[in-house]
Amino acid sequence: MQNDFKFEIVTKDKKSKARLGKIITAHGLIETPAFVPVGTKATVKGLTPQDLQEAEVQILFGNTYHLHLRPGEDLVKDFGGLSKFMSWNGPTITDSGGFQVFSLGQLKMKLTEEGEGTEVKVVNIKDDGVMFHSHIDGSKHLFTPEISIDIQKKLGADLILAFDECAPHPSTYDYTKEAMERTHKWAIRSLKASKSKNYHPWKQALYGIIQGGVYQDLRKESAKFISKLDFDGIAIGGVSVGESKQEMRQAIDWSYPFLPENKPRHLLGIGEIDDIFDVIERGMDTFDCVIPTRFGRYGIVFVGPPEGNIKNRFRLDINKLIYTKDKSQISKNCLCYVCKNFTRGYIHHLFRAQELLAYRLASYHNMFFINNLVKEIRESILGENFQKMKQEWLV
Amino acid sequence: MQNDFKFEIVTKDKKSKARLGKIITAHGLIETPAFVPVGTKATVKGLTPQDLQEAEVQILFGNTYHLHLRPGEDLVKDFGGLSKFMSWNGPTITDSGGFQVFSLGQLKMKLTEEGEGTEVKVVNIKDDGVMFHSHIDGSKHLFTPEISIDIQKKLGADLILAFDECAPHPSTYDYTKEAMERTHKWAIRSLKASKSKNYHPWKQALYGIIQGGVYQDLRKESAKFISKLDFDGIAIGGVSVGESKQEMRQAIDWSYPFLPENKPRHLLGIGEIDDIFDVIERGMDTFDCVIPTRFGRYGIVFVGPPEGNIKNRFRLDINKLIYTKDKSQISKNCLCYVCKNFTRGYIHHLFRAQELLAYRLASYHNMFFINNLVKEIRESILGENFQKMKQEWLV
Repeated sequence: MQNDFKFEIVTKDKKSKARLGKIITAHGLIETPAFVPVGTKATVKGLTPQDLQEAEVQILFGNTYHLHLRPGEDLVKDFGGLSKFMSWNGPTITDSGGFQVFSLGQLKMKLTEEGEGTEVKVVNIKDDGVMFHSHIDGSKHLFTPEISIDIQKKLGADLILAFDECAPHPSTYDYTKEAMERTHKWAIRSLKASKSKNYHPWKQALYGIIQGGVYQDLRKESAKFISKLDFDGIAIGGVSVGESKQEMRQAIDWSYPFLPENKPRHLLGIGEIDDIFDVIERGMDTFDCVIPTRFGRYGIVFVGPPEGNIKNRFRLDINKLIYTKDKSQISKNCLCYVCKNFTRGYIHHLFRAQELLAYRLASYHNMFFINNLVKEIRESILGENFQKMKQEWLV
Repeated sequence: MQNDFKFEIVTKDKKSKARLGKIITAHGLIETPAFVPVGTKATVKGLTPQDLQEAEVQILFGNTYHLHLRPGEDLVKDFGGLSKFMSWNGPTITDSGGFQVFSLGQLKMKLTEEGEGTEVKVVNIKDDGVMFHSHIDGSKHLFTPEISIDIQKKLGADLILAFDECAPHPSTYDYTKEAMERTHKWAIRSLKASKSKNYHPWKQALYGIIQGGVYQDLRKESAKFISKLDFDGIAIGGVSVGESKQEMRQAIDWSYPFLPENKPRHLLGIGEIDDIFDVIERGMDTFDCVIPTRFGRYGIVFVGPPEGNIKNRFRLDINKLIYTKDKSQISKNCLCYVCKNFTRGYIHHLFRAQELLAYRLASYHNMFFINNLVKEIRESILGENFQKMKQEWLV
């Protein structure tokens, strides 16, 4: 296994900020722009590594919070790291755990406000780090930048993230600023911690995270601050918690001028079909999202043009009775195993009968569909017709 | 598609009643003895047709009761029959619906006796047929031999079963006799009904069903009666509802002398690993069972000798904590995708985390394991060392 980490730009789109690149890791190559499926607990829900290969997935995203609680980073380390543990023959990225600590904590607090459950102080944020209770068994845990990095080093992903605080939406200007400043201090500590003990022989590239919520001056300040530090890559966080896609686009646009050209850029928690065009056009290289499998489990499946369009958000709900007798494949022209073999009517039946295969087939199709779309976008950038492709999809 | 149905005996074991054969159907060939996985609602739970092909599954079993209630036989017919509906490129067999009508009915009656739920007369057995309520929505349905055969003709399986009453266990001699006599009358009516309207161009071979519970004279009477009729094959029913494996073996042994040599024999609802040796040795050609996927969903996985043996019933429970750090594959020497790629420790983690992939991987392994075992048994019969193989497994 090679120990280096490298990012190369292959070509740039002439009419947008889109770029084609290559991220080289010890576990393999990632051609960018790339969609990064989420495998929260060391599994992309319902799919095998073989399914993911068939969908031409290049890299998986694991959640440090979940993996820390179960099965624990020491076990994963002992099994040879995240890729080997889950038998995924390719690169992985882990987040810092911050997002889940705050979002699961928030959820609990909300429930409490509504009078359900007993009041438990789930999250206790201090400048040093965050104390929280496990959502599984209530056990107490502390995350600091040093602990997050150490856990991520044991998990052994090729790309790892600095510990950050993702302020909830909506948050006041003052709170967002406070969280951003904490994130900046934690960025420096994460960088320092990353120089400490390694558990695996390969390089784990560290990304810093830009925060700043919906506030232009904070986003700019954060982008400037994080971009100046010695990170291997830059991530933009806190864009999936907002309410509008407009806020997501702004957060990128405000940060963009400060992003170093030669470092890979990851956008956290995006995207839907239209988002994917948007964020690639805005110069993002990778972006992770749970959508293909989460939608899949609910029977929401992707369809391409002309049936799929910006209005129906390229989705159909296979649970609907109109699909009972439908002998066509989910998405016309889709070449995935599911589309080549199964009718909408059959998949509708599986959802009605609540059969395990339903969730699997819908997730498989969505995973293939979205990765194939991003692959076609890469080809369009290479062929200098990205704008044309975007127009065809987003008319 | 060819319209004929043929059964050929390839060779017979010299030291037992075991035999190698071929069942030729319009949808393909079945090499016997063959294990028949159950795909209750037009899906083998959690597995794709491709998975089943990889496990060298040759034929699938569908449940008329379930398919009648959802999605309905007319829909399946309209989609080209059961095989095509579920994208299974091979033969299928359907039961008569009788077993589920009685067993699901019984269940409801038991609940009522224990004071749960309101008293609903779920099943009403008359000589003409059975009136029952759907377990899904309580709607009223009638099954008669004519209706069962008509539904099965619409479903379009290659092998279909006469309508029968499977008496519950325990049942009195008198009730068992009454149910058997009803089954015999229904056998004649099923045969007659099978000459009526066809919905698909291929031959659907009709099997008669031997009943008679745990009573020797009834089993003999039933075997004699059913064997004399003009069925294409013979099934033995009511052996999976008993309490002991001894009763299952007796039911076969009592029936055996009357079974026509030249007709294929199906045993309903068996088997576990040791049962498989037992029933093949007793001259059965095919047998269906839900075990691979049902066990799989609970984390019970098959292991071969020497770890697996008659005492642990060739099973291990992957949920147990001793497997947390286990880096070995489920079953040593197993060549399935799961064993080649995943550790016990990882699969244990998936079960602890209640991940969809857990059920899928365990089901896949079990399906492969059991079909591979039966394949090896076929090879052992051909190689004249079936007894030796049996001894190696069942020491």
